[in-house]
Amino acid sequence: MNFSTLLFVSLFCGLILAQDGVNAPETGKISKRHQCFPDMCKVLQEFHAMKQKLGVLETRLKNSENQILELQNIERTKVIFSAATGGNGALGPFNTDTTLVYRAVKTNIGKAYNQATGIFTAPVKGIYYFTFFYHAGGAQPARLFLMRNKQIVAATSDHSTSYDGADNGGNAVFLQLQRGDHVYVRLCAHTHVWQNDAITTFSGFLVGQV
Amino acid sequence: MNFSTLLFVSLFCGLILAQDGVNAPETGKISKRHQCFPDMCKVLQEFHAMKQKLGVLETRLKNSENQILELQNIERTKVIFSAATGGNGALGPFNTDTTLVYRAVKTNIGKAYNQATGIFTAPVKGIYYFTFFYHAGGAQPARLFLMRNKQIVAATSDHSTSYDGADNGGNAVFLQLQRGDHVYVRLCAHTHVWQNDAITTFSGFLVGQV
Amino acid sequence: MNFSTLLFVSLFCGLILAQDGVNAPETGKISKRHQCFPDMCKVLQEFHAMKQKLGVLETRLKNSENQILELQNIERTKVIFSAATGGNGALGPFNTDTTLVYRAVKTNIGKAYNQATGIFTAPVKGIYYFTFFYHAGGAQPARLFLMRNKQIVAATSDHSTSYDGADNGGNAVFLQLQRGDHVYVRLCAHTHVWQNDAITTFSGFLVGQV
Repeated sequence: MNFSTLLFVSLFCGLILAQDGVNAPETGKISKRHQCFPDMCKVLQEFHAMKQKLGVLETRLKNSENQILELQNIERTKVIFSAATGGNGALGPFNTDTTLVYRAVKTNIGKAYNQATGIFTAPVKGIYYFTFFYHAGGAQPARLFLMRNKQIVAATSDHSTSYDGADNGGNAVFLQLQRGDHVYVRLCAHTHVWQNDAITTFSGFLVGQV
Repeated sequence: MNFSTLLFVSLFCGLILAQDGVNAPETGKISKRHQCFPDMCKVLQEFHAMKQKLGVLETRLKNSENQILELQNIERTKVIFSAATGGNGALGPFNTDTTLVYRAVKTNIGKAYNQATGIFTAPVKGIYYFTFFYHAGGAQPARLFLMRNKQIVAATSDHSTSYDGADNGGNAVFLQLQRGDHVYVRLCAHTHVWQNDAITTFSGFLVGQV
Repeated sequence: MNFSTLLFVSLFCGLILAQDGVNAPETGKISKRHQCFPDMCKVLQEFHAMKQKLGVLETRLKNSENQILELQNIERTKVIFSAATGGNGALGPFNTDTTLVYRAVKTNIGKAYNQATGIFTAPVKGIYYFTFFYHAGGAQPARLFLMRNKQIVAATSDHSTSYDGADNGGNAVFLQLQRGDHVYVRLCAHTHVWQNDAITTFSGFLVGQV
């Protein structure tokens, strides 16, 4: 309670006492008034305390609102994609390593996968899951690397064989990425895969931000 | 502050001034009373302001409570399943396309996968992840399509061969589904897979609601 | 409102009425004072109501803060790992079943995967996703089981063949685990896989706590 309120309280209590003198109340009435005098002072004290408490609650509420906003932002940040090569027949072999471009996009929430280049670019720092599968004829080998920037992070491959018309492969990995990291599938030189809208695929999603 | 309160405040302040006249206080005391007079008015004004602020905080708190409820609902909505075919030996070939029924259920949180029909039905609109793997003997080809309603969304297959006792395949995809969409694995006509509790499987989960 | 405050209110209202008598105000002024008298009582009643409301808001805010904390804890509990065998060439065959130790760890958020033993230990009860892939030469069979404690939960395998230089396999499953459950990959006796930093892998993550 500040000084002027305190002064007011004592003057107010003093005023009531003076009024008692002017009105010459009977003895019983003075006693009751004396009983009530502390209540008004108490009310003022409680008012002051309530004012402080309200300020504290407002601060806590503000913190809660900020934390809710943060949780909502995390929940709304979705990065999820799936694509197949599209096309028909054999893709490759090429004389050099080639980035596989998966043109038949099924899902691309967050638009982090670029269907023109085949490159996924991490929009936020976080842990991502990637998985890729291929189908290939047996006449040529198949070798695919999942790349993070210039590093091989997963692989799948198969030899060529005359005796097996086709083979399959795939792999998966969880990677911690920085914002801007590139992830893509490299078709190694002199190897091939089979193309269509469903069989040779590349998928991934943001698992969580760290 | 409403009109009657304002009126009361001025009357109250006026009353105190009149009392000063009746009590003929010494000059010093009048000055102090005049200093305190604005405090009670101020208290009443602050009280009114506090009342409004309390109303605003209550509205903000209600909003926060609703947002928390929404975040909790999202967190509690879990749809996750895994199942294997169960059974023994070769399943197929059949003369027609057949929905693969995975009877050996390992997990079925949210009960969206129907182990009697092999069909997963999306309980809420959202992005889902599906993955399926098969093992098959070499004597017959294998061809499996992951279907969303009537559309092929992923595939895996292999030729028959006398020279390779068995082969494996699989695939995965992230799909945006509407509530009620059906996702299931089709075993194509004239192809087969190998059955047991662990090797030919179908799994999926709700990644996020959009 | 408590008894002494009620007594004060009636005395205060009575005091103002008595003052009217002492000051012998003109008829008009008494009427206005009578109009304002209920306001102070009303203010005290409202003050009491506000005090109660503030208490209720504080309780609700406390609940909200606890719920936010719970949501934050869930969001922060991340368990995500990926590892490849590392090494070179063929791993196996061994005369007994062997736990595959994936030494080339790519990710191990939550440190639940032990790269010395190959065993993942669930740090919290929840639903987890596991996936594993292998590559193996054709000269020996390959057979891998994903184990939960002593139970086979997923499998992948291939026969040996002279006619196919290599083969691939893999599988995935969602499992509900208790805290402390062990999940690992068993390389079955007399079978082998191919080792390197990228091709024979084991990965998993905590999907959600239940």
